[in-house]
Amino acid sequence: MNNKTILLASRPMGMPTSENFKFEERDVPTLQEGKVLLKALFVSVDPYMRGRMSDAESYVAPYTVGEPIVGGVVAEVIESKIPELPKGTVVQGALPWQQFSVHAGEGLIPIDPNLAPLSYHLGILGMPGLTAYFGLLYIGDPKPGETVVVSGAAGAVGTVVGQIAKLKGCRVVGVAGSEDKIAYLKDELGFDEAINYKTTGSIKEAISNACPDGIDVYFDNVGGEISDAVYLRLNNFARIAVCGQIAYYNSTTVPTGMRVEPILLKKSALMKGFIVRDYAKDFAVAAKDLSAWVKEGKLKYQETITEGFENIPEAFLGLFSGQNTGKQLVKVAEREV
Amino acid sequence: MNNKTILLASRPMGMPTSENFKFEERDVPTLQEGKVLLKALFVSVDPYMRGRMSDAESYVAPYTVGEPIVGGVVAEVIESKIPELPKGTVVQGALPWQQFSVHAGEGLIPIDPNLAPLSYHLGILGMPGLTAYFGLLYIGDPKPGETVVVSGAAGAVGTVVGQIAKLKGCRVVGVAGSEDKIAYLKDELGFDEAINYKTTGSIKEAISNACPDGIDVYFDNVGGEISDAVYLRLNNFARIAVCGQIAYYNSTTVPTGMRVEPILLKKSALMKGFIVRDYAKDFAVAAKDLSAWVKEGKLKYQETITEGFENIPEAFLGLFSGQNTGKQLVKVAEREV
Repeated sequence: MNNKTILLASRPMGMPTSENFKFEERDVPTLQEGKVLLKALFVSVDPYMRGRMSDAESYVAPYTVGEPIVGGVVAEVIESKIPELPKGTVVQGALPWQQFSVHAGEGLIPIDPNLAPLSYHLGILGMPGLTAYFGLLYIGDPKPGETVVVSGAAGAVGTVVGQIAKLKGCRVVGVAGSEDKIAYLKDELGFDEAINYKTTGSIKEAISNACPDGIDVYFDNVGGEISDAVYLRLNNFARIAVCGQIAYYNSTTVPTGMRVEPILLKKSALMKGFIVRDYAKDFAVAAKDLSAWVKEGKLKYQETITEGFENIPEAFLGLFSGQNTGKQLVKVAEREV
Repeated sequence: MNNKTILLASRPMGMPTSENFKFEERDVPTLQEGKVLLKALFVSVDPYMRGRMSDAESYVAPYTVGEPIVGGVVAEVIESKIPELPKGTVVQGALPWQQFSVHAGEGLIPIDPNLAPLSYHLGILGMPGLTAYFGLLYIGDPKPGETVVVSGAAGAVGTVVGQIAKLKGCRVVGVAGSEDKIAYLKDELGFDEAINYKTTGSIKEAISNACPDGIDVYFDNVGGEISDAVYLRLNNFARIAVCGQIAYYNSTTVPTGMRVEPILLKKSALMKGFIVRDYAKDFAVAAKDLSAWVKEGKLKYQETITEGFENIPEAFLGLFSGQNTGKQLVKVAEREV
């Protein structure tokens, strides 16, 4: 049985290229007690992975040169020595870019193949969708009529945040970085306002104008001056879900800037950081809600699926030239069962 | 009858000085129906009042230049045209820095003089005690065995925070600004560790050494570099109650410094600002707990009482140079009845 893997060959200088990746053939190991053999079905390629290819001191652990790239994968259990994960189970998890891999099961999330297409579990029903769901609903706790601002609004998480906030009856303002994205948020996803931070001039004024009644919930994917502009318009008892801080990921020193603490004090506001696995016990509830909303047409979701394991690097590199619309995935194999 | 009052003469630029206050003689007004004449007994001076001296937007309305300063006062009804507040009743409320004042009664809280010394109702059974109670228990939510750090530990709020945390079975570390305060926290109040931030050298090292298992709860009265040192030692799912930010109260520009957001993200930590009146509906429950703990000797309480109405500004200014241990009050008059 062939078992291709993709290693990090070298760290990119600036824009990554195919030279940064290396294909290698690996043995399929003999299965030991307490492990499963997984066949990758869909592989997720995401912009955040660019950050992990660097070794700059950062809030994201870097990949190791000479080791496989790891990311979101939907895989099928094709041999099992874990009773809870019998053969035929489909799971999602953080797995290597590798056709077959052996895993001890920890952190793998079984998925219900009847709920939605399997690929959705890397997007709207997977980490990005669940991240949006928990951050917005469990931390942001939006009430009808409140104003919700989301930064990184056109991303895999931000698009879901904004749409759920609309479902909950909120006024939704998105911040993103291109006119195409702004048009998409307003025209396709129903955001009330969307701000192109690259062209708007003063982001503080733009946020202030877009939020005449102040801001009750902020879902933050970015940090930096967009967040500072939001902080200045927070209402009393505002809630801030800190989901990403991409402004600082490549920072080699401790990030500094405006202090948020005095504002949280003045406004009796709450700020909470989180990662999706903090809410693992409620994944099933969330996936059920999300899939219902998708089926009812209340949540729009787009994906671009590239075929073939060998095309993973190309699909990843395509993210940076804007080739994809919506979530970019690679289909690696058909399900066996 | 003399009736001195203290007005806000001007708004401070940076640190307040005695120039910002003005003494004036006022008439004692004739009492009308539905009013009481109050004689101030104890006046509370508190760091938050610095904020009200500015006209920047805040959670409390700014004082008006040329009008009396208003704050927590324990006063005696010396003449009454309100049946529910007969002569001799002692009340606490938000009242002007003024020897005698006329009041319609609304918002005045009658206090039981047999429960505790009258001054306690401006401290452990008043706003500072309630602030400690709600910030620690409702936001910090400490569990037995967890590490709790409190800054401004020797203040009216901090001393109560640390003692309640000990009652809850936590390891308690206080940060304060003199050797006397450190000794008080450790020897009298049972703090596990106390750090003199003025002499410790590296506050980061001191915090790190005092918290070998990291920090689960941080009750912050101060902000600034003490907070930064705490942030670097937070455990996953830490909770931070932002109660005061005295490091910035005298700041004339937007405070900047280390960004806490990336740390909250990395640690899935929660930070919440609050003021005591956010929890008004639970005041009775809290006061019952606090007075029981005081009676059982589980909560020790210290006051610094300055004598004389004319010394109120000086007592207030002393807060910013760390002169007081425990709650700073000014005794203005003896009770008549």
